Amino acid sequence: MSTRITAVDVHDVRFPTAAAGDGSDSLNRGDYSAAYVELRSDARDGTVGTGLAFTNGRGNELVCAAVRTLAHHVVGVKVEDVFADMVPFWRSLVADDQLRWLGPEKGVIHLATAALVNAVWDLRAKLSRVPLWKLLADMPAADLVATIDFRYIDDALEPQEARAMLEQAAAGAEERELDASGYPAYTTSVGWLGYSDEKVRALVRAAVAGGWRDMKMKVGLDADADARRAALIRSEIGPDARLMMDANQVWGVGEAIERMQRLAFVRPYWIEEPTHPDDVLGHARIARAVAPVRVATGEVAANRVIFKQLLQAQAIGVCQVDACRVGGVNEVLAILLLAARYGVPVCPHAGGVGLCEYVQHLAVFDYLRVSASLEGRMIEYVDHLHEHFVDPVTVTRGRYRVPRSPGYSVTMRPESVERFTFPDGEVWT
Amino acid sequence: MSTRITAVDVHDVRFPTAAAGDGSDSLNRGDYSAAYVELRSDARDGTVGTGLAFTNGRGNELVCAAVRTLAHHVVGVKVEDVFADMVPFWRSLVADDQLRWLGPEKGVIHLATAALVNAVWDLRAKLSRVPLWKLLADMPAADLVATIDFRYIDDALEPQEARAMLEQAAAGAEERELDASGYPAYTTSVGWLGYSDEKVRALVRAAVAGGWRDMKMKVGLDADADARRAALIRSEIGPDARLMMDANQVWGVGEAIERMQRLAFVRPYWIEEPTHPDDVLGHARIARAVAPVRVATGEVAANRVIFKQLLQAQAIGVCQVDACRVGGVNEVLAILLLAARYGVPVCPHAGGVGLCEYVQHLAVFDYLRVSASLEGRMIEYVDHLHEHFVDPVTVTRGRYRVPRSPGYSVTMRPESVERFTFPDGEVWT
Repeated sequence: MSTRITAVDVHDVRFPTAAAGDGSDSLNRGDYSAAYVELRSDARDGTVGTGLAFTNGRGNELVCAAVRTLAHHVVGVKVEDVFADMVPFWRSLVADDQLRWLGPEKGVIHLATAALVNAVWDLRAKLSRVPLWKLLADMPAADLVATIDFRYIDDALEPQEARAMLEQAAAGAEERELDASGYPAYTTSVGWLGYSDEKVRALVRAAVAGGWRDMKMKVGLDADADARRAALIRSEIGPDARLMMDANQVWGVGEAIERMQRLAFVRPYWIEEPTHPDDVLGHARIARAVAPVRVATGEVAANRVIFKQLLQAQAIGVCQVDACRVGGVNEVLAILLLAARYGVPVCPHAGGVGLCEYVQHLAVFDYLRVSASLEGRMIEYVDHLHEHFVDPVTVTRGRYRVPRSPGYSVTMRPESVERFTFPDGEVWT
Repeated sequence: MSTRITAVDVHDVRFPTAAAGDGSDSLNRGDYSAAYVELRSDARDGTVGTGLAFTNGRGNELVCAAVRTLAHHVVGVKVEDVFADMVPFWRSLVADDQLRWLGPEKGVIHLATAALVNAVWDLRAKLSRVPLWKLLADMPAADLVATIDFRYIDDALEPQEARAMLEQAAAGAEERELDASGYPAYTTSVGWLGYSDEKVRALVRAAVAGGWRDMKMKVGLDADADARRAALIRSEIGPDARLMMDANQVWGVGEAIERMQRLAFVRPYWIEEPTHPDDVLGHARIARAVAPVRVATGEVAANRVIFKQLLQAQAIGVCQVDACRVGGVNEVLAILLLAARYGVPVCPHAGGVGLCEYVQHLAVFDYLRVSASLEGRMIEYVDHLHEHFVDPVTVTRGRYRVPRSPGYSVTMRPESVERFTFPDGEVWT
C-alpha cells in the first residue's frame, strides 16, 4: 500500500495579537501568523498531512509564496518512498540548485521548508495512526540516523556516533513513562513587555496558584524596569523557582554582559537571546562572563550549522530548538543529537502559533530516545491560540500531558483557518 | 531642494543562463536573475534610483515579493532626510518589528533590503551627479560612520575607531589615482564546472592573450577532474599567476581539508567557500589546516555579524563581500571597515547580474578611504550579461576602469528589462 501526495495547499493565517501586547518583547510586536500547509493525498480515507511555519507578524505572505515555490518537490511523491530514502528528499528542498541562493538553509525559504517537511511527517504519523513522538520513538536507531543529513555537521557528530547514542538511550526507553506525571514546563505568559506591573503580578499569582513553578520574563528595554519587574516576579515565585529572562536579541555583546550583571541579584536561571542569533562567538563571550547564569538560544538559530557551532564554542547551556525555524523534523533530530553529544539540555522554544503543539512531541522523543533525562529540561508554554487546533496541548499543574492523537498536532480547525485567513477572512475584512 | 521617493517598482528579470552551463558550479546551476528595483521620485528631471538583488535562478519571485513587503518604508521618504539620519532608515528595513522574524538580516528579506537600500544610494548619487564611489569618497569620516549600524559589531569595531581609520586613510586619498592603471581584477569566466577541458584551455589562452594574469576555477565534484583541470590551468598561466579555487560550499570541514591537500601541488592562492557559509568555526579550522592557501568567503555570508566572526576567528584571509547579499551600501561599509580593522584584504564577489557593475564602486572607495592599498586586492570579473546595463563596466587588460557616470551603475536598459521579465517577457514566452 502506498500513498501519494497529490497537492499542496497553503493558507496565510493571521491572528490580531499585536494590539493586545500579547507576544510583545524588546524587538518584536507582531500579529502572530502561520503559513499553514495541507498535503492532500490519495489515501482512501482522505488523510491530510498538515504543517505550519510560525511568523511573528507581517511577511507571512512571503513564507506562503516560498511554500508554493518549493511545492513541486513534494507533489507527486509517495510517502513510503520518501521515508525509504529520506536525505535525498530533504536535500531536494534545501539544496535545490536554483533555490539555495535564497538561503541557504535560512530565513523565508527554510521556514517554508519546515512547514512542508513537518507536514510530510504528520502525514506519515497519521497514516500509521500514531502520534509523531511515538512514530519516532519506535524507529530503529539506524532508521533515525538515515533521516539526518550529516553534511556540514560530521566534524561534530558522525552517523555511527549518533546511532550508538540512540541505541544506548533506547535501552531503558520503555521504563521511562511520562503518562502519570507529564513533561515539565515553564510559562512565558506572565511577563511580556507590553504588560503593566499590576498585570504581571496578577498573572504570576494566578500561575503559581495553577501549579506553575518556573517562569520567564522579557527584558531588554529599560534597565530599571527590568530590575523592578524581575524583583517583583522573584518575590512572588520564591527563591527556589527558576526565573528565566529573554532579551530577544536586543543587546550587543558588551551591553548584554553589563545588563545581566545588573540583574544578577534575582539569580536568573538563563538569559535567552542576549544578542544577534548569528553571533556564535558573541554568545560564547557572554556565556563566560555571566556564568553561572546560562545562555540560551535557538528560536532564531537558522539551522544545524549554527547549533553545531553554539555547542562547539560552549556558547549555550540550554538548546532552544524550534520546530519550524530549522528544516523540519529531520533537522531537529540532528540538533537533538548534537545537543546530547555536547551534554546540553534541550528546552524547546514554544508559544507563537502551534509551537507548543509541535514541540511536545520533540521533547517526549528526546526523553525516550536521546537524553534519557528530565534534569534541566522544560518545555516552554504560552497560553495563546490553542483553541484553533483540533488536538491542542493539555497542560495541567505546569506539565504537558503526553499527546495521544495521531500526527504532529498542528492540524487547525477549518473554521479558524477560514476566519483568520489574511486578507479575506472575517477577522481581517 | 528636497526629493521625495514617490513609488517603488520591482521587476523579476531572468536570463536563461542555465542551459549553456555558464555559472555552473558544484551546487548551483541557475538562470541568473535579478529583482530589479526602480525608485520613482519627484525630482524635476525624473531621476530614477535603481538597485537590484542577484538570484541564482528560481525563487526570484520571492525576492520581488519581499521588496513589495518592505516598500512602504521607502515610499514617501525624502532622500535628504534619509541621509541626514541614516541608521533609523536602515533599521526601519532590517528591524521592522513584524518582519525581522523572517531573517533577521538574512536570506530573502535581506536580499530585498539590499536592492532597496542600494537604489536609495543610487538615487542620491545621481541627484548629486557623481558616481557612487565618489559620493562615498568625498564624505567626511563622521558622515560615513553615521551611515553604519554598529549594533552587534561594536565588540569588534567602535564608531570612534572607524572614524579614526577613515580619517587616516583620507590623508593620502588624493594622491591615490586609479585613472591611468585601473583597479586590478581576476577572471572567473574560464573555469565553470559545466565546461569541457578543451573549452577551459581555449578560454585560458584567450584570457592570457587578453592581458589577464590571475584566474579562478570551480572545484568540488570529482577530485580527479579537479586535479586535472587545475594542472591544465596552472600549466597555461605559468608559475607566477594566482590560481584561485571555488568549491561553492560543497564540502564538509574534514572533506575540505583533504580535498585541498590533494590540490596543493598547483599552489592555489585561495580556496573559496570550502564549506557551509554559516560555519565560522569550520572555516577557521580549514584555514589553519590549508595554510598558506588562504580561505576566502563572503558571497553568501548573510550579514556583518557573520563577517565580524569570520574575522575575529581568523577564519578568512580574503573578504569577499557582495554588494546585494548584505543589506546594501550601509552594511558593506561596516564590513569594509571590519576587514581593515583585522588586516584582511577585500576582494569583492562579482559575476551574476550586475555584480561587477556594483562592486567596482566599493573597491575604488575601499582603496581611496579604507585600505589605501592594492596589495592582495582584486575585483572578480565574469564576462556575462554586461550588455544589459546602461553603464556597463569597462575592463581592459585585466583591470577595471574607474566608472565615471553618476550613480551605482546597475541601471538596466529598458529593452532588456522588458525582454527578460519573467514570465511575460519575450524570452520566456
